[in-house]
Amino acid sequence: MVKLFRKTSKKPGLPPGTLVHIGEKKVEEVKISMIDYDETLIQERDVASIEECLRFKEKPTVTWVNVTGIHDVTVIEEFGKAFNIHPLLLEDIVHSDQRPKLEDYDDYLFIVLRMLRYDETKEELQSEQVSLILGPNFVISFQEREGDVFDPVRARIRNGKGKVRKMGCDYLTYALIDSIVDNYFLVLEKYGEKIEILQEKVLSHPTPDTLQVIHATKRDMIFLRKSVWPLREAINALQRGESALISDNVIIYLRDVYDHTIQVIDTIETFRDMISGTLDVYLSSVSNKMNEVMKVLTIIATIFMPMTFIAGIYGMNFKYMPELEWHWAYPVIWAVIIVLGVLMLMGFKRKKWL
Amino acid sequence: MVKLFRKTSKKPGLPPGTLVHIGEKKVEEVKISMIDYDETLIQERDVASIEECLRFKEKPTVTWVNVTGIHDVTVIEEFGKAFNIHPLLLEDIVHSDQRPKLEDYDDYLFIVLRMLRYDETKEELQSEQVSLILGPNFVISFQEREGDVFDPVRARIRNGKGKVRKMGCDYLTYALIDSIVDNYFLVLEKYGEKIEILQEKVLSHPTPDTLQVIHATKRDMIFLRKSVWPLREAINALQRGESALISDNVIIYLRDVYDHTIQVIDTIETFRDMISGTLDVYLSSVSNKMNEVMKVLTIIATIFMPMTFIAGIYGMNFKYMPELEWHWAYPVIWAVIIVLGVLMLMGFKRKKWL
Amino acid sequence: MVKLFRKTSKKPGLPPGTLVHIGEKKVEEVKISMIDYDETLIQERDVASIEECLRFKEKPTVTWVNVTGIHDVTVIEEFGKAFNIHPLLLEDIVHSDQRPKLEDYDDYLFIVLRMLRYDETKEELQSEQVSLILGPNFVISFQEREGDVFDPVRARIRNGKGKVRKMGCDYLTYALIDSIVDNYFLVLEKYGEKIEILQEKVLSHPTPDTLQVIHATKRDMIFLRKSVWPLREAINALQRGESALISDNVIIYLRDVYDHTIQVIDTIETFRDMISGTLDVYLSSVSNKMNEVMKVLTIIATIFMPMTFIAGIYGMNFKYMPELEWHWAYPVIWAVIIVLGVLMLMGFKRKKWL
Amino acid sequence: MVKLFRKTSKKPGLPPGTLVHIGEKKVEEVKISMIDYDETLIQERDVASIEECLRFKEKPTVTWVNVTGIHDVTVIEEFGKAFNIHPLLLEDIVHSDQRPKLEDYDDYLFIVLRMLRYDETKEELQSEQVSLILGPNFVISFQEREGDVFDPVRARIRNGKGKVRKMGCDYLTYALIDSIVDNYFLVLEKYGEKIEILQEKVLSHPTPDTLQVIHATKRDMIFLRKSVWPLREAINALQRGESALISDNVIIYLRDVYDHTIQVIDTIETFRDMISGTLDVYLSSVSNKMNEVMKVLTIIATIFMPMTFIAGIYGMNFKYMPELEWHWAYPVIWAVIIVLGVLMLMGFKRKKWL
Amino acid sequence: MVKLFRKTSKKPGLPPGTLVHIGEKKVEEVKISMIDYDETLIQERDVASIEECLRFKEKPTVTWVNVTGIHDVTVIEEFGKAFNIHPLLLEDIVHSDQRPKLEDYDDYLFIVLRMLRYDETKEELQSEQVSLILGPNFVISFQEREGDVFDPVRARIRNGKGKVRKMGCDYLTYALIDSIVDNYFLVLEKYGEKIEILQEKVLSHPTPDTLQVIHATKRDMIFLRKSVWPLREAINALQRGESALISDNVIIYLRDVYDHTIQVIDTIETFRDMISGTLDVYLSSVSNKMNEVMKVLTIIATIFMPMTFIAGIYGMNFKYMPELEWHWAYPVIWAVIIVLGVLMLMGFKRKKWL
Repeated sequence: MVKLFRKTSKKPGLPPGTLVHIGEKKVEEVKISMIDYDETLIQERDVASIEECLRFKEKPTVTWVNVTGIHDVTVIEEFGKAFNIHPLLLEDIVHSDQRPKLEDYDDYLFIVLRMLRYDETKEELQSEQVSLILGPNFVISFQEREGDVFDPVRARIRNGKGKVRKMGCDYLTYALIDSIVDNYFLVLEKYGEKIEILQEKVLSHPTPDTLQVIHATKRDMIFLRKSVWPLREAINALQRGESALISDNVIIYLRDVYDHTIQVIDTIETFRDMISGTLDVYLSSVSNKMNEVMKVLTIIATIFMPMTFIAGIYGMNFKYMPELEWHWAYPVIWAVIIVLGVLMLMGFKRKKWL
Repeated sequence: MVKLFRKTSKKPGLPPGTLVHIGEKKVEEVKISMIDYDETLIQERDVASIEECLRFKEKPTVTWVNVTGIHDVTVIEEFGKAFNIHPLLLEDIVHSDQRPKLEDYDDYLFIVLRMLRYDETKEELQSEQVSLILGPNFVISFQEREGDVFDPVRARIRNGKGKVRKMGCDYLTYALIDSIVDNYFLVLEKYGEKIEILQEKVLSHPTPDTLQVIHATKRDMIFLRKSVWPLREAINALQRGESALISDNVIIYLRDVYDHTIQVIDTIETFRDMISGTLDVYLSSVSNKMNEVMKVLTIIATIFMPMTFIAGIYGMNFKYMPELEWHWAYPVIWAVIIVLGVLMLMGFKRKKWL
Repeated sequence: MVKLFRKTSKKPGLPPGTLVHIGEKKVEEVKISMIDYDETLIQERDVASIEECLRFKEKPTVTWVNVTGIHDVTVIEEFGKAFNIHPLLLEDIVHSDQRPKLEDYDDYLFIVLRMLRYDETKEELQSEQVSLILGPNFVISFQEREGDVFDPVRARIRNGKGKVRKMGCDYLTYALIDSIVDNYFLVLEKYGEKIEILQEKVLSHPTPDTLQVIHATKRDMIFLRKSVWPLREAINALQRGESALISDNVIIYLRDVYDHTIQVIDTIETFRDMISGTLDVYLSSVSNKMNEVMKVLTIIATIFMPMTFIAGIYGMNFKYMPELEWHWAYPVIWAVIIVLGVLMLMGFKRKKWL
Repeated sequence: MVKLFRKTSKKPGLPPGTLVHIGEKKVEEVKISMIDYDETLIQERDVASIEECLRFKEKPTVTWVNVTGIHDVTVIEEFGKAFNIHPLLLEDIVHSDQRPKLEDYDDYLFIVLRMLRYDETKEELQSEQVSLILGPNFVISFQEREGDVFDPVRARIRNGKGKVRKMGCDYLTYALIDSIVDNYFLVLEKYGEKIEILQEKVLSHPTPDTLQVIHATKRDMIFLRKSVWPLREAINALQRGESALISDNVIIYLRDVYDHTIQVIDTIETFRDMISGTLDVYLSSVSNKMNEVMKVLTIIATIFMPMTFIAGIYGMNFKYMPELEWHWAYPVIWAVIIVLGVLMLMGFKRKKWL
Repeated sequence: MVKLFRKTSKKPGLPPGTLVHIGEKKVEEVKISMIDYDETLIQERDVASIEECLRFKEKPTVTWVNVTGIHDVTVIEEFGKAFNIHPLLLEDIVHSDQRPKLEDYDDYLFIVLRMLRYDETKEELQSEQVSLILGPNFVISFQEREGDVFDPVRARIRNGKGKVRKMGCDYLTYALIDSIVDNYFLVLEKYGEKIEILQEKVLSHPTPDTLQVIHATKRDMIFLRKSVWPLREAINALQRGESALISDNVIIYLRDVYDHTIQVIDTIETFRDMISGTLDVYLSSVSNKMNEVMKVLTIIATIFMPMTFIAGIYGMNFKYMPELEWHWAYPVIWAVIIVLGVLMLMGFKRKKWL
C-alpha cells in the first residue's frame, strides 16, 4: 500500500532555497552517469565529479546527465552552481513529495513527475520522484533510487534506432516523459487484473478481507490520480510550445504523450467507478446474507414456537384435562403438529422465503 | 458485458511510431475495398495491393478506401508510406483502445471513433474502433472487424441518392460519422428497453440476479459515456470549421451530427439516472422485505412466548398448586390463552404491522 | 409518468434531411391556421393549402402560421419548399424528441422548445415539442397536438391589448416563448403541491407506495430539468441579440423570459433537493420502525425467556426436589416471576426502550 | 420553517408588464415615506400621493423614497409613470418571488434582494423581497412588510454620522444593501447556535424529533443559499463599476459588501457540512442502538435457550430415566445450569458484547 | 476542536469603517515591536507609542512593525491615522473571522491569512488571524495572540542569513507568508499521524468513540480547507505581480509559496478522502458485527428450538404414549437430540456461518 501522506522532517522557517532532503533515503550512494551524443557520435560514462560534466555543457551535442539518489544535498548544490540553477528549483528536487509540475525558468525548463512501479512480490505500488531539467543542450534527470524505466531510451540512443539521435534535447526530454507515462499503462494493467479478481470474489464468496482489499485499491487509485492529474496539465503546458526550448517538430510528440495521460486519467476514473461498483456489490451481498440469516431464524422460530406451545399445553398438570385420557390423543397431536409444520413451510414457499 | 479495460501487450519504451497492434485480432485477413466516385462516374473494387489505390490519390474524384482488420501492421505501414501519413497517427490506428478524438495534421484530418453494436444473442455490447483519415481527395477508413454500419452510405453512393455524389470528401466523412452516431440511437434503444424491463422486475419480484443486471447495465453506461463524451468534443472541433479540408456547406451537417451526439449523451445521462433510481428501488424493496421478515418473527414470538410461559407454569410439579385441582381450570386457561392471542393480534393491527 | 426515453423508429443511415416522423401520432389530421396583422389590420383564417400562406410571406405585415400535427411529412416538406427552409431543420421538426435549442440559419431563426401540461386526471406530465421558425416577416409554429398555451397571445393580437400589434415578428416569437415558459410555473405549482403532500405523508404514515411516488416525482424532475436547462441557453443566445432578426427593443423582453427560465431551473433544483430530503425522511422512518420492531421482540424475549425457564425448572420430574413439597413454593415462584418481570420493564424504561 | 416554494396566482399568458401581485399580502395599507437630504439639509416626511415625491426627483439632493407594501399594483403603476420606469421592472417588484439580481436600465439600476429575519418566538426564518431603484438623484426602495433593517441607516442620515450625508445616491444604495447583508450574519448566528444544540443533542439523546429538526435546518440552509448565491453575483456586477450611476469612491465599499456576501456563502456552506455531519452522527447512533438491541436479544436467547432445554429434558415423562431417581440430581442440574450461564457470559465478555 | 463558526457581537447597521473587535480577546495588552533594517544596519525595539514608528515610515530602510493583540480598537485607529490606512481595512483587521484575501489599495497591499497551531496537550487546532500591510518601505503585521511562527524570519534578519537583508519589504512579506504556510505542513503532519492511528483503530477495535474522533477530524479538515482555499487565490493574485509594490525578483519566490499552498490543499483533499475511507471501513465493520450477532442468535435458536420441542413432546402427560414406557427411549431421545445438533452445526459450517 502506497503512503498517501509522507512525513516531512523539514523545519519550517528556513530561508527559501535551503536544501534539506525530504523523504526516505532510497539509495546508499549518489550515482551520476552521463550520455553525450549527436547524430554521429556517442559517449557514455559514469561521472565522479560534476566538473566532468561541465565541459559538455556548452558543447552543441545532447548531454544527458542522470543522477540517482537525491539525499546528498551537497551534490545537488554543486549541480546548482555548475549549471547555474535557481536554489528554489534545487529545493524542489530534494523535497521528494512534489506534485507533478512544469516550471519555466527561461534558460531551462523544470519538470517534475512520478515514476511508478508495481512491486508484485509485495503487492504494492512504489512511487519515486523524477525531476528533469531541460537546458539548451543538456538534460539532467534526478531520480530517488536505482532502476528506472529509461533503459529502452538508452538502448535507442546507443543503437541509433528511432529518431532520438537525430533530434535535440527537447526530444530526449519527450522520450523520458513518454517512457514514464507508458509505464503507467503497465501499472494500470496490474490494477485492471486486481479489480477483475475482486469483482469475481465479491460475487462468489465475499469476506471482510475482500472489503479491505477494495478499500486499499481505492486508496491506490486516489494516489494514482494525484500523480497523473497535475502531470496532464504540465504536459499540456509543454505541448503548447510556449518555450523556445521546445522545437516545433517535437510538439506533435508531446501532443501524443498528452493524449496518453488523458487515456491514463480516463482509465483511472473508470477503475474508480469499477471499484465503487464492486463495493456496492459487496455491500448488497452482505445485506443479502443478513436477509438470509434473518429468514432462517424466522422460519425456525415460526415453525417451532407453535409446536412447542402445543407440547407445553399437554404438559400441564391439571387434574381435569379430558384429552389426556383419550386413546388416540397422542398420535392426533403428532398429526396436528406435522400438518401445522407443513402448512407453515408451504406458506414460506409461497412468500418465496424458501 | 463490454470490457471497461483492455489489456495492453505493448512493451513500454518503444520509439514513438512503432506499430504494435493492441487489442484482439477480430478478423483473419485484412480486406481492402475502394469506391471512387464523382457526380457522374462511380468505380468500386476490392484492392489487393496498396499501389492500386495510389493512382486515385491525386485524381480530383472522391476516393474512399476502407480497410477491415488492423492487426497486420505491415499493411498499415505501407499505407503510411503510400499516403505519407505520420507514424504517430499509424500507431493510433493499430492501438484499438483509443478514446475518440480529432487530430489536425494540416494535410489531413484524423478522426477516431467507436462503432457500437448490441449483440442480442449474447446480450452484450460490442465495440470496435473506427479510424478515419480525411485527405484532400481521399477518405481512408480503418475498422477492426467485418460488418459495419456504412452500408446505407454505400447504397446512397451507388444510387446517387441524396447529396453524397455531388459533394466532396468532407461530406463523405460526415456521412460516415453520421451513420455511426445514428447507430448509437439503436443501441440506446436496446438499453432503454432493458432498463424498462428492469424497472418492472424490481417492483414485481426483485432478486439478487436483478441486482447483477442493474450493475452490469450501469457498467455498460459508463462504457458508452466514455465512448461518446470525447466524440462530442471531436465533432465540435470539426464543426468549428477551422480546417481547410472542411468546406462551409458541410459545416451545417456537422452541426447536426454534433447535435445528435449531445442528444446521445443526454440519453446516456438519463439512463444513468434511471438505473440509479432502479437501484434505489431495489435496495428499498430489499429492506422492506427484511422489515417484513422481522415483523413476522416478532409477531410469532410475541404471541407464542407468553402462551408457552402460561403452559409452562401449569406444567410445574409443585405439590400445592390449587388451580390444578379446579374443575374448570383447563378450559379457563385455554380461554385466557386465546384472549391473549387475540388481544395481541389486535395490538399488531393497530400498529399496522398486519 | 412521463417517458424519459422515447423509442425511435428511424432507420439509421438515411440521407440527412430525409423526413421520417419520430414520436407518437398525437392528432389525426394536420391543421394549419394563420393570423396576419399589423397595427391597424388583422386577418385570421384556417388554411387548406400552403399556397394560401405564400402571398403573405412577402407582405410587411406579421404573418403567424400555426401547424398542429407533425406526423404528415409531406405537409412539412411542402412548407420547406414554400418558405425555402433547410431540410435538416425540417428533419428536426418531425423528430419530436429534440432537446430545446436555437439555430441560426441567417435568413431565419429556428427555436425548439417543449410545451408541458400536467394532466390532473391521469396525474401525469404531458410534453409536446413546439418548433418556431422566425423569418423576416413571418413566424411559423409547429406543435404535436391540439390545444396549446397560445390562446392568451391570440387574444392579445385580436384585441390589440399590450404591445403585440405594434411590434414585429420578433416580439410575437417572444410572446409565444413567454407563454410556454409562464406555463412551466403552473406545472411546477402542481409539483409543489404534490411534494408538500408527500412530505406530510412521509411523516404521518409512510408506505412503500409513498416511496414509489417519491421515485416517480424524482423522475419527472429529471425530465423537467432536461427540458428547461438547454432552453435557458437557447434563450440566452437569443437575448444576446446577435441575429439581425431580433430588434433591440425586444431584447429587454427576452432578458425577462431568460430570467424566468433561471427561476424555473432554480425551482426544479429546489424540488430535487426537497424530494431527496423526503426520501431521506422516508428511509429513516423505515429504519426507525425496524428499530421499534426489534425492540418489541427483544423486550418480549427478555421478559418471557427467564420466566419460562423458571417454570421449566419446576416442571422437572426429579424425585428429590425439596421446593416441590414446600407449602408456599407456588405463590413464591409467582412472586419471583412477577418481580423479575417488573425489574426488567424498569430496566427497559431506564434504557429508554419503552 | 420557510417555504421553499411559493404558490403563484398569476395567470400565465398575460402581456408582459401586466402588474399582478404574487405572494402573501403582508401589510394592510401601502405606506410611503421619504427622506431628502444633502450635506447641510434634511427633510423627512410621510407621503400621501406620489406627486409629492416628483418635485424632489429633479433636485440635486439625495431623495430616498421607501414604499412598504407591494400588493397594491395601482400604487406601483403610478410610481412607474411618475419615475418613468419600465413595466417589466414594475412586474418584478410585485412578483415577490424574484431571485436576487441586478438589472441595468441605463437611466437607473434595479436591484432585488431578500431581507431575512429569524423570528425567535415561532422559531422560523422570515423572508421578504426588497427592490431598490437607483436613479441619478433618487433611490426608491420597496419592501413587503413593516419593520426593516434600515433604521441604523436612517439614524446615520439624521445624525449626519459617517459619510452618508456627504455622498450621493450610490452610497445610500450601498448602505441599504450593506445593512441587509450585515443582518444575514445575525440570522446565521441563530443557526450557528441551533446547529450547536443539535450536535450536542445528537450525541446525548437522539430522537426521531432531532432528525426532523436536522432536516428542517437543512431546508433552511437550502433557502438561505438560494437567497445569497445570486446576490453575490449581483453585487459583483455592481462593484465592477460598469454603470455611470456608481461613482469610483463607492466601489471600494461595494467591494467590502461583496466580501461579506462571500463570507455569508462560506458560512452557509460550512453549516451545510456541519448539518450533514450531524445527520451522519445521528444515523450511526441509531444504528449503534439497533446493534445494542440485537446484542441484548442475542445474549438473553443464548443464555436461556440451552438452560430451558435442560429443564425441558428433565421434564420428560419417560419411565426409565435413571437421573430422576438420583439423590443429588437436582442440585447438580442447578450447578450445571449456573456454570453454563457463567461460561456464556464470559464468552460474551471476551467478544466485547458486554 | 476548532470552532467552525464564531459568534459575532457586531451590531449590524453601523457605518462602514466603525471599528468593533470581533472574536475572543486572546491577549491582555497590545504589544508593538519594530525591526528596522537594511543591508548594513539593524535596529530592533519595543514600541510604546505609534509616533515612534512614524519617523521610520519615510526612511528607505525596511521597517517591520508587529502588533500583537487586536482587541484595542483605539490602537488600530491610531495606526490608521498614522499610516493613512483606509477605515474599511482597519475594520477587517479587528474582525478576526475574515477569510484569507488580498486587497490592493494602490498605496499598500492588504493581506489576511490564518496562522494555525496544533495544541498537542489539548489535542486541538488553534487558529489566529494575521493581517499584513505592505507599504512602500514598511510592513505592518497584526496578530491576535503572543507567540508566532515568525521567529525564524526574525533570526534570519538578525543574522543576515539568506537574502532577507539584501531585499525589500516585498521579500519580507513573502518571508512572513512563507513561514505561515510552511507551518501548515507541521499541522498537517499531526493530522496525518492522527488519521493513521484512526485507520488502525478502525480495523482492530472500532468503538463509537472512534466514530466521534473521525467526525471531529473531518470537521477540522473542513476548517483547514476553508483557511487555505482562499489563501491560494490571494497568493496567486500576488504572484501575478500586478502591483508595483512587488518587484520582479520576488515573484519567483511567491510562485514557490503558491506551489506550497497547492500542495497543502492537495494534502487536505487526500486527508478528506482518507477520512471518508476510514468512515466507510468503520461503518462496514459495524455492520459486519451486526451480522455476526445475528448469526449467533440464529445458530442458537436453530439448534435449541427443535431440541426443546422434542423435550416438550415427551413432557406431555397423555395417558397413552407408548414411547414413555420403552426401556431405551430416554437414551434414544438423547441420541436423536445430539445427532440433530451435530447435523445443524454441519449445515451451518457448509453455509460458512461458523
